[in-house]
Amino acid sequence: MATLSDIGVAAGINLLSAFVFLLAFAILRLQPFNDRVYFPKWYLKGLRSSPSRSGTFVKKFVNLDFRSYLRFLNWMPEALKMPELELIDHAGLDSAVYLRIYLIGLKIFVPITFLAWAVLVPVNYTNKTLELQLKNVTSSDIDKLSISNVPEGSDRFWTHIVMAYAFTFWTCYVLLKEYEKVANMRLQFLVSEKRRPDQFTVLVRNVPPDSDESVSETVEHFFLVNHPDTYLTHQVVCNANKLAKLVKKRKSKQNWLDYYQLKYSRNNAKRPIMKTGFLGLWGEKVDAIDHHITEIEKLSDEIAEERERVLKDPKSIMPAAFVSFKSRWGAAVCAQTQQSRNPTLWLTDWAPEPRDVYWQNLSIPYVSIAVRRLIMAVAFFFLTFFFMIPIASVQALATIEGLEKAAPFLKALIEIPFIKSVIQGFLPGIVLKLFLIFLPTILMIMSKFEGFTSISSLERRSATRYYLFNLVNVFLGSVIAGSALDQLNTFIKQSANEIPKTIGVAVPMRATFFITYIMVDGWAGIAAEILMLKPLIIYHLKNTFLVKTEKDREEAMNPGSLSFNVGEPRIQLYFLLGMVYATVTPVLLPFIVVFFGLAYVVFRHQIINVYNQEYESAAAFWPDVHGRIIIALLVSHVALIGLLSTKHLAQAAPLLITLAVLTIWFYRFCKARYEPAFVRYPLQEAVMKDTLERARDSNFNLKPYLQNAYIHPVFKEEDDDEEEEVVKLENESVLVPTKRQSRRNTPVPSKMSGASSQSLPEAVPEHSVP
Amino acid sequence: MATLSDIGVAAGINLLSAFVFLLAFAILRLQPFNDRVYFPKWYLKGLRSSPSRSGTFVKKFVNLDFRSYLRFLNWMPEALKMPELELIDHAGLDSAVYLRIYLIGLKIFVPITFLAWAVLVPVNYTNKTLELQLKNVTSSDIDKLSISNVPEGSDRFWTHIVMAYAFTFWTCYVLLKEYEKVANMRLQFLVSEKRRPDQFTVLVRNVPPDSDESVSETVEHFFLVNHPDTYLTHQVVCNANKLAKLVKKRKSKQNWLDYYQLKYSRNNAKRPIMKTGFLGLWGEKVDAIDHHITEIEKLSDEIAEERERVLKDPKSIMPAAFVSFKSRWGAAVCAQTQQSRNPTLWLTDWAPEPRDVYWQNLSIPYVSIAVRRLIMAVAFFFLTFFFMIPIASVQALATIEGLEKAAPFLKALIEIPFIKSVIQGFLPGIVLKLFLIFLPTILMIMSKFEGFTSISSLERRSATRYYLFNLVNVFLGSVIAGSALDQLNTFIKQSANEIPKTIGVAVPMRATFFITYIMVDGWAGIAAEILMLKPLIIYHLKNTFLVKTEKDREEAMNPGSLSFNVGEPRIQLYFLLGMVYATVTPVLLPFIVVFFGLAYVVFRHQIINVYNQEYESAAAFWPDVHGRIIIALLVSHVALIGLLSTKHLAQAAPLLITLAVLTIWFYRFCKARYEPAFVRYPLQEAVMKDTLERARDSNFNLKPYLQNAYIHPVFKEEDDDEEEEVVKLENESVLVPTKRQSRRNTPVPSKMSGASSQSLPEAVPEHSVP
Repeated sequence: MATLSDIGVAAGINLLSAFVFLLAFAILRLQPFNDRVYFPKWYLKGLRSSPSRSGTFVKKFVNLDFRSYLRFLNWMPEALKMPELELIDHAGLDSAVYLRIYLIGLKIFVPITFLAWAVLVPVNYTNKTLELQLKNVTSSDIDKLSISNVPEGSDRFWTHIVMAYAFTFWTCYVLLKEYEKVANMRLQFLVSEKRRPDQFTVLVRNVPPDSDESVSETVEHFFLVNHPDTYLTHQVVCNANKLAKLVKKRKSKQNWLDYYQLKYSRNNAKRPIMKTGFLGLWGEKVDAIDHHITEIEKLSDEIAEERERVLKDPKSIMPAAFVSFKSRWGAAVCAQTQQSRNPTLWLTDWAPEPRDVYWQNLSIPYVSIAVRRLIMAVAFFFLTFFFMIPIASVQALATIEGLEKAAPFLKALIEIPFIKSVIQGFLPGIVLKLFLIFLPTILMIMSKFEGFTSISSLERRSATRYYLFNLVNVFLGSVIAGSALDQLNTFIKQSANEIPKTIGVAVPMRATFFITYIMVDGWAGIAAEILMLKPLIIYHLKNTFLVKTEKDREEAMNPGSLSFNVGEPRIQLYFLLGMVYATVTPVLLPFIVVFFGLAYVVFRHQIINVYNQEYESAAAFWPDVHGRIIIALLVSHVALIGLLSTKHLAQAAPLLITLAVLTIWFYRFCKARYEPAFVRYPLQEAVMKDTLERARDSNFNLKPYLQNAYIHPVFKEEDDDEEEEVVKLENESVLVPTKRQSRRNTPVPSKMSGASSQSLPEAVPEHSVP
Repeated sequence: MATLSDIGVAAGINLLSAFVFLLAFAILRLQPFNDRVYFPKWYLKGLRSSPSRSGTFVKKFVNLDFRSYLRFLNWMPEALKMPELELIDHAGLDSAVYLRIYLIGLKIFVPITFLAWAVLVPVNYTNKTLELQLKNVTSSDIDKLSISNVPEGSDRFWTHIVMAYAFTFWTCYVLLKEYEKVANMRLQFLVSEKRRPDQFTVLVRNVPPDSDESVSETVEHFFLVNHPDTYLTHQVVCNANKLAKLVKKRKSKQNWLDYYQLKYSRNNAKRPIMKTGFLGLWGEKVDAIDHHITEIEKLSDEIAEERERVLKDPKSIMPAAFVSFKSRWGAAVCAQTQQSRNPTLWLTDWAPEPRDVYWQNLSIPYVSIAVRRLIMAVAFFFLTFFFMIPIASVQALATIEGLEKAAPFLKALIEIPFIKSVIQGFLPGIVLKLFLIFLPTILMIMSKFEGFTSISSLERRSATRYYLFNLVNVFLGSVIAGSALDQLNTFIKQSANEIPKTIGVAVPMRATFFITYIMVDGWAGIAAEILMLKPLIIYHLKNTFLVKTEKDREEAMNPGSLSFNVGEPRIQLYFLLGMVYATVTPVLLPFIVVFFGLAYVVFRHQIINVYNQEYESAAAFWPDVHGRIIIALLVSHVALIGLLSTKHLAQAAPLLITLAVLTIWFYRFCKARYEPAFVRYPLQEAVMKDTLERARDSNFNLKPYLQNAYIHPVFKEEDDDEEEEVVKLENESVLVPTKRQSRRNTPVPSKMSGASSQSLPEAVPEHSVP
């Protein structure tokens, strides 16, 4: 058990490292040559251009204005200054609502912290249990402030129960208000938005095959019959996966060509040479520039051919289509109703934003999806509970003895004391860390395999899984100290009323561990986030070796995005810790509050200046966030039940079970009350918008506007890159404004968008278009 | 442990009693004076009239044709003769599909029985474990055929595991086929049906209050705006509960008046006298006929007043309405979409059939329903696990000592040996039995409190609860032998892998008990069902004392209905027993098969000749039936896992867990694949029917047809009973055909319908109307 001063030292170290990160950030961000790393969002919006165009050579790279260094922390108030409405306009609703998760953390935990310190800490501290028990051991100050200090069977535990009620009710109240607020924000956002193709479009999957008609005809006939008054047009989905691969390959070759040309232009004496083999390590030596030019030409031919094939071959048409309607009402009706007798055919769903579509998954048939879900559920179970098995075997290999056995020739090297200690101290940890770094990617691949059709739903699914993994392996794994497999064993072998006890007893003992965890991961980690070390290094590498033009420089920026699938589960861990320890060890609460405060400021800054969100789901993730905070509440109840029953206060259990039942009921109430706002689209809203629009802009021709909204991004890029390849479109006359409209409204994901646009204003996201 | 011969004797007794019931039925049904008890369905359909109109006096009451007695069992082939399509036409889809539950029992268990006897019985019988173990005890033959006879750790258990797979796959296959079949039957039924008001109508609840407009205006405006092309008309719902009560009271007075008048007409000398006090036991003596006439007049005035008030007073208009559309498409769209921003307002749902509406619950607001659900969930938990507490205390009172203490004056009476033995032997059992008899009623009241709006959904909810109660208290209660409270205690205190063991060990030991149970409840009980003793007695009592006219005689019939809420959970118990014992004690299977066979014939007869279904939900209950058979499968897997792990074959557990996971996946697959057919209404179907109808009958005026389809039954009755009270309706000219149409299509529940109709053809249900 750590004493308060131990914790103080740890806090000092972490605060210092956080401070160092922040200081480094404050200095680096002021240097003009880092401008594109720390303010890419503004470049993408076209509101900022390279500062290195004027001034002396030195000034281009280093900021020599010393006054600006004095105000090195003023990014913080700046980040907080932008009002929420402007933020939504600037970065989208997803980002704004994502920030509200931190805000809700503050709203929940600041009052709880005050209440806990005002009531629970004195109640715990004025006991003498630990002093009596541990006369010869130095008593830990933290434990004196925790529930462990209250003697068994004491009436003081009723305070804790009352506090559990108070905390739960307060959390539920905040959750309710917030759900209402976010639901309204979402509807407001959907209402206030400009015309968007996805408002009129429904994604239809599992179109049944018809021997007499093509997919396109089948779709048209079906909707002309079943939605006669509202059906407008449709676009079938082509299987352009191979084409996309070829285009990607050509782009990479083009990059290399650029690199070699740049190299040649700098050093005209020597034409660059390369090897054709694997990774350029062996094989025939050839002239790099010529080689790439021929390669690219070959690929271009292939692409043209493949493209022809995709457009002509009926086999490349997938049994899915984007069906557009004359009004939002029509689309809302179609998305919410069942079309066919057979509920696995003609599946209709709101079309995601064009840039949110995950094209590869559009053609998976229904039965296949059902089987894939089963396989992934089983795989995830094994991943969660048995992931330690392969890792442990790798770790066994990574010990001194293991290495010496596996590779005897390394023996001499390993025996050097320094290397030996490194291997012993770090390698097993690094193996685990590597796995944990790749875990979100693994989970994302699993979600993709399951057949979700939009990037946002893929991320939501991955986030759910990552959260469960964290709950089992990080939280329970730390509390019960053992791998998930051991836990599973423990839980199977223990009775239902032993399990809460096991958790309850362990929870207060792990408080100091979690405090340290919060400081390392939550304080220093968040401060490191703002420094953006990886993008910084990559940008400068690219800038040195590849960049020739402004366009290249733009491509070299990697603003990144929020990556909901990694970030949200991490926040949820703090909610969980806060809830569980609120009644048990209130000392932990201030650390949580500091985390939420710091993270809120940091991420607000990042969202305003850096991240470029790849899609907009209008806060569709909120029900998940809400549900997980409820899970945190329930875990806290279970832990408290277990803890109190070991303290000879088993009669408290019914009271706390009641609290848990009420919490579950609250969840179900909220689900029924607010979740539809995130899943369905009320007809009232649709009619209102339709009417408004008809009044305002009655001559607008919707059909050409929607005609090409949902074409595979690979075709769009082609159009931009090679303007000689004009796609034959029906309405040649309205083509130009149409294309502009749809492009403006549907910028492809950041990197691609940057790649395809010739000039800056092209890449402006939709919100700034009037 | 009973031997085979013990079981044989018990089987003989029960077969004999079943035979006696069937014989009594065969004789009683041939007597003309019982005709209305055993063939009421045909009377209600108007296809049969009283046979007692011609012939001699004796012939009117007793069948003297002895040849007909010889063929006393020929109702059985007769019951099986009617083809299913005709049956649907005759008794509705609900009844036809209900019979399929028995049929599915036969389809599942006949092959399983053959397989089990061909494979498992020899495998079990050729061991000598029990002979060795129980040398000095007479070995039970049944146990020698069961899994108990296989020695611990034997490889023979793999046969049982393979069989468990075979049985599960076969059951799932049958379930899948059956789900498909029933879903098709349902859609076919909905398609082939005549025009019905509920096809065009949506029930809207939680209409928000508006200070400027009445409910009716609010509804009209909302739907004119949001469904401009399809909205036709609507009917608001009045709170006529008080009116209905008054009408009911008047009807009962009218009955008494009839009774006294009949008495007076038989014995003209003496005018009947009655007392005005409680139950006619005390109070002032008055002339009964005059008294009732004045009472009825008073009530009629009150009714007229109340009626006026309901129709005028805006406060009696509830915030709910039946909204009708111009086409089935319009109604399907409205029922499946969300209307308003606030998902707890403007809740739309398919309107139930007019006779299926549960009027009292139409006005409950959303939040209240959420709270009621919570209360009932908690209440049901306590009912299931703690119901023994009040019953045990009553039982304690019902012992000799208890009675003597509570009522010392009864001491002399109780001490009589015969009465003493009756009290000791029967009273505690009777207390429990009384509770169990009232349980479905209690559950029904709970469902009503929860706020379901149709009788069919009330019955489905009650059935679910009754099933759970049976599962916990009858099945687990018998297996683990103890009250549910004890079980709860056991389960909480045991670890997750001990619970299956507890069940698994106990299951084979209780086989003989369940065999006896099946014979008593399943064989003799079903045979008693066909005798209809209670309706028979009541009919004859009424016939003697009350009946004057044909109409009265019709009222005296009580055909009853299927009562899904009681019947279906009872069948499910047999599925559960069959599944659990299929691998453990195959001897039990033939008993199950006999039950399903007998019950199928008996209920087919009852449905054809007796029951008068009160509503038609088009087999909406099938997903529940399907789900519960899946639960039976899962329980059987758990029991087998437990059993095998006590037999030192714990390595079988993963295999069986895999089987359980596959079963759960199968359930989810079926749910996603077929359940929508029972919940939603595909637009394709709607369009098809709309088009057909428009082509066939283009001039039909839908508005007057739908205008009065959904008025509270109390107003309808009034119209019939007192034709001077003509309701003022807008379209006087189309009133007459409208009324007839809607009445034909919506007969009120059997008893009421009988009561209100003046002549027989009025009560003909819709299916016989061309």
